[in-house]
Amino acid sequence: MTTWKRKDLLSMQELSADEITAVLDTSAAFKQVGSRQIKKVPALRGKTLVNFFVEPSTRTRISFELAAFRLSADVVNISPTTSSLTKGETLKDTARNLQALHADIIVLRHQSAGAAQFLAERLQSSIVNAGDGAHEHPTQALLDVFTIRERKGRIAGLHIVIIGDILFSRVARSNIWALLKLGARVTLAGPSTLVPRAFAEMGVAVSHSIDDILPAADVVNLLRIQHERQQKQFFPSLGEYVHLFGLTRKRAEILKPDCLIMHPGPINRGIEIDSEIADSPRSVILDQVTNGLAVRMAVLYLCAGGKKLG
Amino acid sequence: MTTWKRKDLLSMQELSADEITAVLDTSAAFKQVGSRQIKKVPALRGKTLVNFFVEPSTRTRISFELAAFRLSADVVNISPTTSSLTKGETLKDTARNLQALHADIIVLRHQSAGAAQFLAERLQSSIVNAGDGAHEHPTQALLDVFTIRERKGRIAGLHIVIIGDILFSRVARSNIWALLKLGARVTLAGPSTLVPRAFAEMGVAVSHSIDDILPAADVVNLLRIQHERQQKQFFPSLGEYVHLFGLTRKRAEILKPDCLIMHPGPINRGIEIDSEIADSPRSVILDQVTNGLAVRMAVLYLCAGGKKLG
Amino acid sequence: MTTWKRKDLLSMQELSADEITAVLDTSAAFKQVGSRQIKKVPALRGKTLVNFFVEPSTRTRISFELAAFRLSADVVNISPTTSSLTKGETLKDTARNLQALHADIIVLRHQSAGAAQFLAERLQSSIVNAGDGAHEHPTQALLDVFTIRERKGRIAGLHIVIIGDILFSRVARSNIWALLKLGARVTLAGPSTLVPRAFAEMGVAVSHSIDDILPAADVVNLLRIQHERQQKQFFPSLGEYVHLFGLTRKRAEILKPDCLIMHPGPINRGIEIDSEIADSPRSVILDQVTNGLAVRMAVLYLCAGGKKLG
Repeated sequence: MTTWKRKDLLSMQELSADEITAVLDTSAAFKQVGSRQIKKVPALRGKTLVNFFVEPSTRTRISFELAAFRLSADVVNISPTTSSLTKGETLKDTARNLQALHADIIVLRHQSAGAAQFLAERLQSSIVNAGDGAHEHPTQALLDVFTIRERKGRIAGLHIVIIGDILFSRVARSNIWALLKLGARVTLAGPSTLVPRAFAEMGVAVSHSIDDILPAADVVNLLRIQHERQQKQFFPSLGEYVHLFGLTRKRAEILKPDCLIMHPGPINRGIEIDSEIADSPRSVILDQVTNGLAVRMAVLYLCAGGKKLG
Repeated sequence: MTTWKRKDLLSMQELSADEITAVLDTSAAFKQVGSRQIKKVPALRGKTLVNFFVEPSTRTRISFELAAFRLSADVVNISPTTSSLTKGETLKDTARNLQALHADIIVLRHQSAGAAQFLAERLQSSIVNAGDGAHEHPTQALLDVFTIRERKGRIAGLHIVIIGDILFSRVARSNIWALLKLGARVTLAGPSTLVPRAFAEMGVAVSHSIDDILPAADVVNLLRIQHERQQKQFFPSLGEYVHLFGLTRKRAEILKPDCLIMHPGPINRGIEIDSEIADSPRSVILDQVTNGLAVRMAVLYLCAGGKKLG
Repeated sequence: MTTWKRKDLLSMQELSADEITAVLDTSAAFKQVGSRQIKKVPALRGKTLVNFFVEPSTRTRISFELAAFRLSADVVNISPTTSSLTKGETLKDTARNLQALHADIIVLRHQSAGAAQFLAERLQSSIVNAGDGAHEHPTQALLDVFTIRERKGRIAGLHIVIIGDILFSRVARSNIWALLKLGARVTLAGPSTLVPRAFAEMGVAVSHSIDDILPAADVVNLLRIQHERQQKQFFPSLGEYVHLFGLTRKRAEILKPDCLIMHPGPINRGIEIDSEIADSPRSVILDQVTNGLAVRMAVLYLCAGGKKLG
């Protein structure tokens, strides 16, 4: 049924277009489950998922937790506040302990790029990267691509504009890989300090203003400005950012009528996007959240070696 | 089977006597489940409950969590320490995200009066108010009323005395509404700063001493003195409070032999109540805890639109 | 099938050799469950386990949580950060509330010796001691003994050397009781401040150097040095400790070829043990973790009064 042979999901960079499509197709099947009277399938009954979040993220943790519940898996959460596990112990030792406890799948959020791969190479447990530093956040890219395909019917040939802090964004990096592999045209936009020209080497266009590129966009994906921890030397003032890169009501008027507006959340209303644009019919921000559940079910199911849907 | 048509439980003020009775009758049915060999029913299998506690409360959170488990629902907990969810995001946006994740029921504890209603008006998910500021705590009132009815066989005509910090108590407010609707006579007692005469407008009696009213009480409900955060300008010294309003061993002698002694917990032994009175046969404090489980099962079940018991 | 009649597991001191053997035999049966396709049995379906950890311990909490999941029990976690439960409330009152919520089993980790027994005498709920101060940690001893028996086929007649901070170690204390009851020979080793001669009264040998005793050991159990909270007046410098008591690569050469190397974890690589020795074939450190799951399933099952395996 599927071309998926991996035990881990570490990055979009390593996936082929066929593998990405396999995840999207499986996600579509699981999305059907969400419309049933009883939203559970026994696919992972008796299997254990560990949400190992060294860096906190309530929303991603919950999405994986609910995806696991729907597959009838058992879930254990390890948060940074429950730090005694890792005290005086290396990441590898902690993970080997989780494997010794028969953790079938470890969902890892970690502040260091490469942490998920490091574990994947050393453990038999499946490792799902839920964000590693500024490197990748593959399930976010998969749910973004799923949402676009669901609305547009395809990815190839679409023009996707990603706006914001690209340099430090794992969401951007995973999206770029996924979109290019599936044949989309990608333009990155933002302040020159945050969107260096070097990105062009990946095969994308780079722009430091958006008013000229928005009219041609099929999809606009706005990244969250984490202004509380944004590095001062890279980031303009908030007012200047909104003026230059915010999707204001006025600026939304130059978008195509069927342009999709996306955001990985949580949104800063009035900063990346005006409040009424976030809630407008072109916004698929909440669809992304819903689709995240189906995509994560698919990823857990495929990595656990699932063969047929229950 | 029931007159319940609501998707939410927000307050006792909005419920009719028939609706309250419907919850109590359903609770009684669920209490039977607790005496079975296997204490679970499949009523909410595949449904998701989110315990969204912006203000912490371990005991209420656990009661809802166990109630959900017995109905075979899946439970996700969001505590204030897992604050990243709400960072830079409005309550409404957070809740809409939970709805997008197919949260069937959101149990909300929040420091602001009206928070539960605000969400209920904007979401399709069922909202259960687990305490909103000094406004209401309806499941506490329901479990209190259930406990009284279980022991006394009725509510109408009984004389209930509620003692303590009424002004800032959501427990008191919810109890007053529930008891009056069911035909009880209610007297509020406590320091005049905490029990203003204005409460008489609700249809209750107000007293600033208790020795004259205790002999006629069928039920005494002692509210918790939260002396660590009690507002200094309203509150007498702890010693003075105990002297005037504490249910001491001596004072308990003037109660009717079958007067019920209640407390929402956690109790301050030696402050609101003497230790041996808290553990005496007339105390139903632990019955309240047990009944809370059945009442919350009923509330979750009814709000989720349950038709028949499994 | 079993000689187990207890509702609680409080200490190894109180168990007979027959009772210990009953736990080990039941654990072996449960370990089989871990190799099945679906790793769950319905033995405790509908029962509730509360992980009540007043002192934090992520790894022990997770082990009990996973054990409960495999028995199909529902689990509620109470951590020290969710402290509102215990605010202004005695341990006994908190526990009585948990019992009123139908907690069938309370797993207690507490900083005070005797806390588990205190609750066991006052509640109908089963109490499992998950560590009480410097007193006992019985499930750790049971999993240690299980691991030895699994590898060596027996306990009687073996020579077990326990190295480290014995004085303040509940792990050591529980191991000593278990090993002696099952007929092992036990030698305690470490600095004289941490391994006082008085231990000899328990029926063990005491040594303040290890090079002379290692060659005769069948098992070496290294306790974790908690140097961040080790009491300065008792503890030598870290370098001196490693020099005198660390299981270095060189020192490992004098061990028997089939000597088992154990550690309750988390290990401090390079302190109690050299990294390559911790990962060598003689090390059963990760087996201990895996066996902990089976042993805790057995303990929960037996204390809950289980009669036959599902």
